[in-house]
Amino acid sequence: MLQGLTSGLRAFCTKSSVVHRTAGLHIRNKTQNQSIQSLLRSPLETDTPVTVQGWVKSLRQHKDIIFLNINDGSCMSSIQVVAKYGSCPGAASYGSCVRVDGVLTKSSRTEQPVEVKAESVYVYGPCDKVKYPFKTKKRHPPDYLRQFLHLRPRTNMFSSLLRIRSNAKKAICDVLQEMEYCSIDTPILTSNDCEGAGELFQVEPTESSTQERTHGSSEEDSRAGRKEHFFNVPTFLTVSGQLHLEVMISALSKVYTFGPTFRAENSRSRHHLSEFYMLEAEVAFLHNTDQLAEIIESLLKNVTKKLLDSSEEDISWYLQNVAPENHGQVIDNIVNKPFVRMTYSDAVEILTQRNDQFDFKVEWGCDLQKEHERYLVVHCGNVPVVVTDYPAAIKPFYMRANDDGRTVAAMDVLGADVGEICGGSLREERLPILEERLDKMGIKTNYEWYLDLRRFGSSPHGGFGLGFERYLQLLLGIANIKDAIPFPRSTHSCRL
Amino acid sequence: MLQGLTSGLRAFCTKSSVVHRTAGLHIRNKTQNQSIQSLLRSPLETDTPVTVQGWVKSLRQHKDIIFLNINDGSCMSSIQVVAKYGSCPGAASYGSCVRVDGVLTKSSRTEQPVEVKAESVYVYGPCDKVKYPFKTKKRHPPDYLRQFLHLRPRTNMFSSLLRIRSNAKKAICDVLQEMEYCSIDTPILTSNDCEGAGELFQVEPTESSTQERTHGSSEEDSRAGRKEHFFNVPTFLTVSGQLHLEVMISALSKVYTFGPTFRAENSRSRHHLSEFYMLEAEVAFLHNTDQLAEIIESLLKNVTKKLLDSSEEDISWYLQNVAPENHGQVIDNIVNKPFVRMTYSDAVEILTQRNDQFDFKVEWGCDLQKEHERYLVVHCGNVPVVVTDYPAAIKPFYMRANDDGRTVAAMDVLGADVGEICGGSLREERLPILEERLDKMGIKTNYEWYLDLRRFGSSPHGGFGLGFERYLQLLLGIANIKDAIPFPRSTHSCRL
Repeated sequence: MLQGLTSGLRAFCTKSSVVHRTAGLHIRNKTQNQSIQSLLRSPLETDTPVTVQGWVKSLRQHKDIIFLNINDGSCMSSIQVVAKYGSCPGAASYGSCVRVDGVLTKSSRTEQPVEVKAESVYVYGPCDKVKYPFKTKKRHPPDYLRQFLHLRPRTNMFSSLLRIRSNAKKAICDVLQEMEYCSIDTPILTSNDCEGAGELFQVEPTESSTQERTHGSSEEDSRAGRKEHFFNVPTFLTVSGQLHLEVMISALSKVYTFGPTFRAENSRSRHHLSEFYMLEAEVAFLHNTDQLAEIIESLLKNVTKKLLDSSEEDISWYLQNVAPENHGQVIDNIVNKPFVRMTYSDAVEILTQRNDQFDFKVEWGCDLQKEHERYLVVHCGNVPVVVTDYPAAIKPFYMRANDDGRTVAAMDVLGADVGEICGGSLREERLPILEERLDKMGIKTNYEWYLDLRRFGSSPHGGFGLGFERYLQLLLGIANIKDAIPFPRSTHSCRL
Repeated sequence: MLQGLTSGLRAFCTKSSVVHRTAGLHIRNKTQNQSIQSLLRSPLETDTPVTVQGWVKSLRQHKDIIFLNINDGSCMSSIQVVAKYGSCPGAASYGSCVRVDGVLTKSSRTEQPVEVKAESVYVYGPCDKVKYPFKTKKRHPPDYLRQFLHLRPRTNMFSSLLRIRSNAKKAICDVLQEMEYCSIDTPILTSNDCEGAGELFQVEPTESSTQERTHGSSEEDSRAGRKEHFFNVPTFLTVSGQLHLEVMISALSKVYTFGPTFRAENSRSRHHLSEFYMLEAEVAFLHNTDQLAEIIESLLKNVTKKLLDSSEEDISWYLQNVAPENHGQVIDNIVNKPFVRMTYSDAVEILTQRNDQFDFKVEWGCDLQKEHERYLVVHCGNVPVVVTDYPAAIKPFYMRANDDGRTVAAMDVLGADVGEICGGSLREERLPILEERLDKMGIKTNYEWYLDLRRFGSSPHGGFGLGFERYLQLLLGIANIKDAIPFPRSTHSCRL
C-alpha cells in the first residue's frame, strides 16, 4: 500500500507523532491524528503544512485546477482541496480513499474558513464508479441504502445518524452519571423470562462446540431424550435487564443498563426490530409514579439539550432533509414544554369519544394501540404524554398494585408519531402480595431469588426502559426504525 | 409500605423536590436525592435537617444509644447514625432497609466529618438475620459469595467492584471520545463467524415464537428437512464486532464498540466466561503495529489514571483486601513505565531458554500459552509486554501479511498474571491478497461484502480488542474472572 509514496513520505508514515518534514517548515504537530473537524473548527495559521486523509465526496475540474471535497467522518462537512491537474492522479475519483499533503490557505468560499492547497495527492484505495452503488451528489432513498448495509455509513444520511447515535449515548450516560447512577452490565444470556411474554430467542452452542458435555442435564430432559443444555438449563436472550437491575438497587440505590435486548416477534413492520437498544434504569426509595415521571422527563429534556449542542450540524441536516415539515417543533416541545400527565382512565375517556376513527375500538381494560397513542399526543399538542395507572390485568407480575384493587402503578411515555418510547412502573416490594401473585401464576419456584430481594431489606423502588431507536426516531423524524440502527435485525433478515 | 409513617411523613414522601418540613427549620434542599457520598464529601452546616436512606451495615448499642452504620452504595463509606433507643425499631437490624430523618452533627470519629443525629428511624424492609446468608462484619470468601449472585452486590467487595466497573467504562468511553472516536453498536446477532473459529452459540426462537414463518428457508434446508431459520440464515452470537467496525472506518475513520461477546468454549477455568465484555476499536490510516501499540498504551495509561482518580477509595480497598501483596506496583507500572515491545520471534528466543519449566514447550510457530505470557511479563519486570508479528499460520485471515512472507502484523498486549488482555492487528487492505486467501479457505462467497470494503476506497487500517474483565483483573488483582462481572456465565452455569 505504501508503494508509490516517495521514500521520504514512507519514512514519515512509520513515525507517529511530531515530525519535522523539511528544515525551515513549521513543526507538523500531531498531523496523523488531525481530523477535518478540528481543521475546520480551530483553523491553524495560513501556510501551515497539513495532511488530510479521507474519502472523495465530490470533485470538479476547472481549467488545470481540480477541486476535491474530502470527508473523514469526523463531521458532516468536507474540506475543500485545491490541486493542480498534474499533482492529482486520475484514481482520485468519487469514493476513493486519499491522502493529501499541502498547506492550509484562506478559503474563498463563505461557508468555510479554510481550504487545503495540495502539494501531493496519494490514492490509498481507488473506487470503481461503475460498480459502486452510490452516485456522487445524489440522495438515495433509505430503502435503497438498506440493501447495502456495509456501504450505507458512507452516505451523509447515515454517517450523520451514527455520529448522533454516538453523541446520544454519551449524553444519556453523562446525564445519568451526573445524577450518581451506577452503570451495570446486565446479562444478555439469561435463564429467566422477565415478562413471561414468550417471543424469546433460545441459545445453544453449534454442533462443533457440544462435545465433552457429559453431565448436568436435568432429569426431565434425560427422560424426554432431549439433548443437554450447555448451561444445564434452557437459556434465552434477554428481553429486559430489569430484574437484574432490581438485584442491584438493594446495594447501589440508583443503577442503569444500556444495551441490546431481543424479541423474536414475527413482525416486518417499520416499528419493530429483533435486536434493539434499551436504556433501563432502576431507583430505590421511589414512592409514586409522579417521582418516576419526573426522573424520565428531566432525563429526556437534559439529554436532548446536550445532544442539540453536541450534534447541532447533524441534527440540522436531518431536520432539513429527512424529518417531516415543522419537526423542529416536536423537539422544542420535548425540551421546553412540561410533559402532559394523565391516568389510563382519563386517556380511555378521551379516546372512546373518537372510537369511530380507530381500527381498534377503545374500552376500559384494553391495551392501547399505536393509533391511540398517536392520537393522544396530537390531542395534547404534540407534547410527550405520560399515561399512568394501567389495568393490572394487562401488565406484568412485578408492577406495584394500587389501592383501588384494579390498577397498577405503571406509566408509559408517548411521543409524536412513534407512540410509546418509554415504559416504567413502581415494582411490587411487598413480599406477601408478590408471593401470592407468583404462586397463582405457578412460577413461584423460579423466582425464589426475586422474592429474596423482598425478604432481605426490601425497598420501595421503581424503574423504566427507554427504547433508544424510538427516541432517535422521535428526535430526528425517522420513519423506519431500521434506519436508526447500524445493522437492523428482523424476521427474515440478519445481514452481515 | 408507607404504613407506619406519620401522616406528615407520608405527605412528604409524595413530594419530590424542595420541602419545608417545619416553619423555622432550614429548607430541605433536594433531600430525596441526597446520597451518602454527597453528605460525606461536601458536608452541610451542622444542624441541617437531612434524610438518609439505605441499608444497615452494622449497629451497636451503648447504654440507651444505638449507633447504626448506613450505606446506600453511592460510595464505600457508611454514614454513622446516632439514635435514641426508643426511636429505633428493633427491625432496624443488619441488612434491613431504613430511612432516617434527623440532623447533621459533627462526628466525634476522626475518619468522618459528620454523622446524623436521628429524630426517627423507619424500617422499609426488615432482614431475617438467621436466613440471610451474609453475616455482619464478616468477610465471606468469593466462592461462597458466588452462590448468591442476587445478594452478592450487597457486600463491600462486590459493590466496590460494580462502582469501579462503572467508572472504568466511563473512563474508557471518555478517553476514546476525547480522541474523536465514534461509538458504534455492532450487532449481537450475526450471520457471520468473524474468526472462523467454531465455539459459537446459535440462536433460534423458542417454539412458541415460530408460527407463521412459512417462506424464506434455503433450498438446502428444505431438502434436509431442517426447520426454517427465523432470520432465513443460521444466526450466531457475535464473537467480535471487528468486521462490522471495518464497515464503519471507511466512513468515520475512528470507531469503537464496547459490549458483550460470546464463546461457547467448554471451559470451567478461572480465566474464561461464555459472555464477557470487550472494547474493540478500529482506526483508519494506520501503517504499522507501532502506531497501534501507541494507541493502546496511551489508552490503557489514560484510562487507568482517570480511574485511579474516580475510584480511589474502592481501588485502595481492593489493594488492601483482595489483590496480592505489592499489587500497587503492577498498577504503577501500567501508568508510569513504557510498555516493553518485542517481536514474537524475540519472545520465542527468550522462552525457549526456559522450556524446562513449561508444560507446553515453545518453538517458533506455536501459539503462546498463558504460562508463557506470564513468564514474559515477569521477565520484563511486571511491565505490560507488547508482542508483535506472529506467524501467519496461527492467526485469522484478516490480518495484514508482513513482507517476510511468514508473519502477520498482529500484536498482543500481555499483563501481569492474567496474560493477554488485548489483541490487535493491521488488517489486510489489499484486495488481491485478501481475495486469494478467502478463495483458498473456500469462504470467498460469504465475504463478498468484506471484499467490497477493499474494492471501494480501501484504507490502510487496524484495530484491537481489549478484554474488559481481564483488564479489571489486572488492575485489581482479582484471581477469578467470575468475580469481575455481575452475572458470570460459563459451562453449566447461567443463574438468574
